Amino acid sequence: MTSPLLSAIQFNEQGLVPAIAQDADSHQVLMMAWMNRDAVVATLQEQRAVYFSRSRGQLWRKGESSGNVQELVDIRLDCDGDTLLLVVRQLGGIACHTGRAHCFYRALRNNEWYDAEPVIKDPDSLYGSSQKSE
Amino acid sequence: MTSPLLSAIQFNEQGLVPAIAQDADSHQVLMMAWMNRDAVVATLQEQRAVYFSRSRGQLWRKGESSGNVQELVDIRLDCDGDTLLLVVRQLGGIACHTGRAHCFYRALRNNEWYDAEPVIKDPDSLYGSSQKSE
Repeated sequence: MTSPLLSAIQFNEQGLVPAIAQDADSHQVLMMAWMNRDAVVATLQEQRAVYFSRSRGQLWRKGESSGNVQELVDIRLDCDGDTLLLVVRQLGGIACHTGRAHCFYRALRNNEWYDAEPVIKDPDSLYGSSQKSE
Repeated sequence: MTSPLLSAIQFNEQGLVPAIAQDADSHQVLMMAWMNRDAVVATLQEQRAVYFSRSRGQLWRKGESSGNVQELVDIRLDCDGDTLLLVVRQLGGIACHTGRAHCFYRALRNNEWYDAEPVIKDPDSLYGSSQKSE
């Protein structure tokens, strides 16, 4: 893949750029994860979200074990070139490894975080083995 | 401000956490910036988005020079505790220092980024002096 596209992206000192995933239909912000150059290239080639797992040190094809793939609808780069926004179609309706629709389920009440979103599916049933997303 | 709230947040090695701002009405993802502990505390106390400007090395009260304040409607923490989502009311309808409604205005066409969103207000008229946001 050629580089005007990639060279506009400001990867940080670890070679990563944050990528926000937003649901194309509900407009819910689903999650934030990281991409390296290979992840950006794979995302565009495969038209699905491919992140870089910092804990596993490798590409992470979102949904590869759970089936909850994020199909790419649109991709945007911000003014500074240092953040990507992915508009996606979330297969299965579950983006979070906890079995919730999205990862931002903790809200504030009386200065404490509480779980504001239901678990749709038991995470143990999402992942065949002990393999989990980042 | 006490700490169960803050200690649940995983600040990175620079003491920062990414914060995504989403418009409460349009649901548009407006921008992504960074917060340190003081920025989180100030955001909650003042009920408006206060980021940490990495370029200026200080708190950055969004809208302090442009007037385009982000009033806090809701704040969420993700499953890993390492990203915040701010749901905000964007005063003035402009989040980006380029004078656009939001920062993610570059879209892909034929493998090149192009500006997909109009400039609503000349950035020179947004900022009195040469002062700009990060």
